[in-house]
Amino acid sequence: MKALIAALMLSVATPVWAGEPCCATGDLGLVIERATGSVLVIDRSDRAAIGRIEGLGDLSHASLTYSPDERFAYVFGRDGGLTKIDMLTRTVAKRIVQGGNSIGGAISDDGRLIAVSNYEPGGVKVFDAETLDQIADIPAGAKTIGLVDVPGRRFAWATWETGEAFMADFSGPEMKLTKLGDVGANPFDAVLTEDASTYLIGLFGEKGVTAIDLWDDQPEPVRFLEDYGKTEDDLPVYKMPHLQGWAFTEGQYVLPAVGQYELLWVDSDTLQEVARTPTHGQPVFIIAQPASPYVWVNFATPLNDTVQVIDSRTHEVVKTLTPGAAVLHMEFAPRGAEVWISARDDNTVAIYDTRSFERVGEIAADSPSGIFFTARAHRTGL
Amino acid sequence: MKALIAALMLSVATPVWAGEPCCATGDLGLVIERATGSVLVIDRSDRAAIGRIEGLGDLSHASLTYSPDERFAYVFGRDGGLTKIDMLTRTVAKRIVQGGNSIGGAISDDGRLIAVSNYEPGGVKVFDAETLDQIADIPAGAKTIGLVDVPGRRFAWATWETGEAFMADFSGPEMKLTKLGDVGANPFDAVLTEDASTYLIGLFGEKGVTAIDLWDDQPEPVRFLEDYGKTEDDLPVYKMPHLQGWAFTEGQYVLPAVGQYELLWVDSDTLQEVARTPTHGQPVFIIAQPASPYVWVNFATPLNDTVQVIDSRTHEVVKTLTPGAAVLHMEFAPRGAEVWISARDDNTVAIYDTRSFERVGEIAADSPSGIFFTARAHRTGL
Repeated sequence: MKALIAALMLSVATPVWAGEPCCATGDLGLVIERATGSVLVIDRSDRAAIGRIEGLGDLSHASLTYSPDERFAYVFGRDGGLTKIDMLTRTVAKRIVQGGNSIGGAISDDGRLIAVSNYEPGGVKVFDAETLDQIADIPAGAKTIGLVDVPGRRFAWATWETGEAFMADFSGPEMKLTKLGDVGANPFDAVLTEDASTYLIGLFGEKGVTAIDLWDDQPEPVRFLEDYGKTEDDLPVYKMPHLQGWAFTEGQYVLPAVGQYELLWVDSDTLQEVARTPTHGQPVFIIAQPASPYVWVNFATPLNDTVQVIDSRTHEVVKTLTPGAAVLHMEFAPRGAEVWISARDDNTVAIYDTRSFERVGEIAADSPSGIFFTARAHRTGL
Repeated sequence: MKALIAALMLSVATPVWAGEPCCATGDLGLVIERATGSVLVIDRSDRAAIGRIEGLGDLSHASLTYSPDERFAYVFGRDGGLTKIDMLTRTVAKRIVQGGNSIGGAISDDGRLIAVSNYEPGGVKVFDAETLDQIADIPAGAKTIGLVDVPGRRFAWATWETGEAFMADFSGPEMKLTKLGDVGANPFDAVLTEDASTYLIGLFGEKGVTAIDLWDDQPEPVRFLEDYGKTEDDLPVYKMPHLQGWAFTEGQYVLPAVGQYELLWVDSDTLQEVARTPTHGQPVFIIAQPASPYVWVNFATPLNDTVQVIDSRTHEVVKTLTPGAAVLHMEFAPRGAEVWISARDDNTVAIYDTRSFERVGEIAADSPSGIFFTARAHRTGL
């Protein structure tokens, strides 16, 4: 009888996950469960959760990146934790706490180096992707923001207090650090265009956006959109839209108008504004649907139950959906057939067909935020 | 003693492959060994061959595509063979001979359908990706060329004898076949731009290139480059450059000038020629290096020991390399750090660092031609 109870308890305690044990890793992904410090392992083809990994610390502001073989994920948590996850065994392979307040990281194009940018103590640290041993510690005397990988074992970032941008090159026997220039007061985020040509830096301390052409032999910061930025002096920094939410489509940058219910469209050659699109709310993420003319947009609270689809040729809204309460993130299947949308307060990840706009599936998740498919392993600047 | 001899023979007969048994599939690939009907399994991270699969029939003109989970490859052979390969077990999972003379295929964006285009008996056949059971047979009364996958469970192709283009849509309960238009005399190959917006069709029977905007509600063929095409009446079809060898970079199409030692650069918006680049020989493949301004070009016999690197901003040659005898194909690591180059007559795949141009590795292969990394699973139109 005791044995029976024990067996029953075991079967209750061990969740039964859908699908067979997987091995190929091309269609897997992770969903950040922000309240519980856990991640859900998902199988895109089966539209199913296949496991949960716990013990990742504070994931209230988390991002991650994948190794080139799509076996390992490196999760950057708010508490400075760097956790290496094995997608095959669905376990934590290694975890270190590398700083006091980490805000993001990147993996080098050869998959050998993991760089992490820190608010506390500031600077950038670089680790061996296999062992998580520290390889470099690059103090900045400032918070570092907008860390991206650049082709050729390089990383770029900007500094909040000192308004500078830097590039570190790990392609030779010694790391080479180069200052890319003075970019303006209080850069709060930065992003790399998908061809890796242009590093775009958003400013909090003054108006405008700074672009640096990384393909230039002597890169120099160029200011554009001179009116872009905060509209009130007391606008808190957490209301500034993240630049990871800028899309690049049809020769345009698409970005949120700060504090407005609008998108801005900027010609990527001339750096001039070419159109505005009125939207349902304050845009948060603007994400280009692969192999299509469309971008998908979610919105800031309290209008965050809605997603809109906008045509980048006409700049018009073509569809409005209400996937659920507190839509935090959207991730496309790499060839664009589906979009997965996290609705935090519904504890759901909803799956939509991008052509029919039908809801084709959903997955239970605990306060889901970021969704990350392994196909990201093959993209630059994420 | 007999047992010892048997053991020795076995160890001779079983090649010892580098590396451990792999499981994650994100950094694997296949190299077509054209003379022996075999494929070599490669590990990109280890720069090593890790297996060989034999019995694939006539691979003298072969291509392949991958399932979304990067577990299975579908190889299209010249003999009409369709072979499904399991990258995990490194075995043939299934093989059928579906036609008399096949020239290429594609996988639907949801990974469920495999389409094959045939010279003999003509038409397109569609198979279940899991079982290889036939799902549709679409006779064309003509040889079909330039078969591509289009988002939304669709495929497009053109017909040689009748000069038409078609789209088949498998998103509903019944397949829907639409004629896209009359595209010109004897289309010999076609290709989809990387944003899946434009289907480009090369003509053999007359001059010019035909473009069809697939994002248009009523797609119509548009002719451009009115002087493009064969320069002599007796130019055989096999000398026409394949359109899979066209690159898309920095708002331009880059294509080989037929019969000339030149590249043409065409503005993708205006469809006007904007520049020409003199090259070492007759260009065959022109491939854009990911996350860079560069395209890499190989050349027709007898100048086929050479590869040139050209800057798409200046249209100038920046590097000339001689990787080996009979360079047939080039494949980039998905984030562009390396290029793998097959040198058929050296029985070698050479690996170059794209930034330093150093030869960083090589792999022995038997008359290698096409090189295909699993990251292709995540790209449209291949």
